[in-house]
Amino acid sequence: MTTTNPKYIAVIGAGVCDEATTTQAEEVGRLIARAGAVLVCGGMSGVMEAACRGSKNEGGTTIGLLPGLERSEGNPFLDFSICTGIGHARNLAVAASGDAVIAIGGGFGTLSEIGLARKCGRPVVLLGSWEIWKDGCVPEGIYLANNAAEAVELTSNRP
Amino acid sequence: MTTTNPKYIAVIGAGVCDEATTTQAEEVGRLIARAGAVLVCGGMSGVMEAACRGSKNEGGTTIGLLPGLERSEGNPFLDFSICTGIGHARNLAVAASGDAVIAIGGGFGTLSEIGLARKCGRPVVLLGSWEIWKDGCVPEGIYLANNAAEAVELTSNRP
Amino acid sequence: MTTTNPKYIAVIGAGVCDEATTTQAEEVGRLIARAGAVLVCGGMSGVMEAACRGSKNEGGTTIGLLPGLERSEGNPFLDFSICTGIGHARNLAVAASGDAVIAIGGGFGTLSEIGLARKCGRPVVLLGSWEIWKDGCVPEGIYLANNAAEAVELTSNRP
Amino acid sequence: MTTTNPKYIAVIGAGVCDEATTTQAEEVGRLIARAGAVLVCGGMSGVMEAACRGSKNEGGTTIGLLPGLERSEGNPFLDFSICTGIGHARNLAVAASGDAVIAIGGGFGTLSEIGLARKCGRPVVLLGSWEIWKDGCVPEGIYLANNAAEAVELTSNRP
Repeated sequence: MTTTNPKYIAVIGAGVCDEATTTQAEEVGRLIARAGAVLVCGGMSGVMEAACRGSKNEGGTTIGLLPGLERSEGNPFLDFSICTGIGHARNLAVAASGDAVIAIGGGFGTLSEIGLARKCGRPVVLLGSWEIWKDGCVPEGIYLANNAAEAVELTSNRP
Repeated sequence: MTTTNPKYIAVIGAGVCDEATTTQAEEVGRLIARAGAVLVCGGMSGVMEAACRGSKNEGGTTIGLLPGLERSEGNPFLDFSICTGIGHARNLAVAASGDAVIAIGGGFGTLSEIGLARKCGRPVVLLGSWEIWKDGCVPEGIYLANNAAEAVELTSNRP
Repeated sequence: MTTTNPKYIAVIGAGVCDEATTTQAEEVGRLIARAGAVLVCGGMSGVMEAACRGSKNEGGTTIGLLPGLERSEGNPFLDFSICTGIGHARNLAVAASGDAVIAIGGGFGTLSEIGLARKCGRPVVLLGSWEIWKDGCVPEGIYLANNAAEAVELTSNRP
Repeated sequence: MTTTNPKYIAVIGAGVCDEATTTQAEEVGRLIARAGAVLVCGGMSGVMEAACRGSKNEGGTTIGLLPGLERSEGNPFLDFSICTGIGHARNLAVAASGDAVIAIGGGFGTLSEIGLARKCGRPVVLLGSWEIWKDGCVPEGIYLANNAAEAVELTSNRP
């Protein structure tokens, strides 16, 4: 009667984004659903909403970790929403709740989630997101994707 | 293609509990599932695990908001688990994520969740839990139940 | 060149309170300062402000752990303020940052802090605050004071 | 009887660092003290400890926002320590509590704090830290320093 443990992929990105980024996020969401993984995100608009819409269009499962206390803040493509009430600190929960994390475009909140994900040992795939270097190298555990298919594929076979 | 919004009931209680409390928590979980509500909890053992087991035995849906960073900490009756990484502060997310909250037995963490739930305006039902008085009265928004059926019923028709 | 470790007393209570409670909070603040302890609190108005005013009137030191991101939210009697940004979850930091905790009057936020303080093993002194019972007894680690002097005295000689 | 509002500078950096970074952090701490600003940090070892030691050697004031629940975790150069209990999520409080933020060297926690600081509108000065680009540019509100003196100077005259 216990349940099987689904694989979780966190999608991070800004609450406002251009059309090209929206298209990419939606495609990532679709591919996550097809891969049978749960999509977890910050639950708001922009990249988060587009990825959730993509997942739902393929029958996937979506969870939003909202910064505030009201469920109504969430985008309309969430199967489940959590009211964390901790503002930007919920970025830690988003990052840590993915077995892997895909960053699409993104602002400073996304940058913080990339750092938090790696701090928690989660692999991070960047798709049209920040360029981050340390001592001239892409840091360990960060992977660059050229398109949505590559991004989702890079989340497989990761520790 | 958007999803309907399920009703959420948060179950709070200690990570260790006696057999009578376990039986009550399991019955509460069953009744939450029969009511068609999502059970959200702290994801650990004791009251949380018993309630989740009850819900799964009736085909319900369970979500655990874990204090730490590892999904493996969660009890085996969780459909979905969130790694909040914020320790006892995740009690806020548990309390706020219920449209109503049921406290079963409980220790000091449960006491904190009762306070946080009321701070966020969520109604709280006490079942064999703390006795809490202010100026000689049970405080507003707190309801006393004598058994599992009463507890789940008291979560209905609440704001 | 290292600094000595001051003793910390957390004062918890509501952001709005009547005049009798204000008077008591101010007296508690004065006595904390005279005892040479740092007063830590949620940094807002009501009980928190009154206690800080009392401490500053006796040359004490006050620290406010604000729920939001703006220092200007804090009351004017704070020596130091921290912008936690985590809303009600900052109650954990307030409770945990006292070597002992004094609750004066108080609402549901205060109730949550009493629970969180005990969860973290901090002794809690209640002064005109919640009545909390478990199985007919005042729970372990919670002490009842009749006035400000008793409250501050009860924080001494505690583990 | 109210107190004047000190200026706060947050110093962020890893808990382990090489000798050159230690030397730089200590110098930054000294200059923050000379500038009359309060140094706020994560309270642990490495860059945090070195900066605090520098500040205390010049008679400055230091505050550590610890991830855990025990004050004894903090480095020995803290005037005041806060037990947040929220793990890596305390990075938000560190970033938000600086009127400006200086990143020295740093790991993934530091990267998260840079993102969180900018999300909260705090200016960030990088000293031997991450290289971060968006669309080929250093992002708005991030400034590059070549040495400790430049880093502290760049925190002045910022919004």
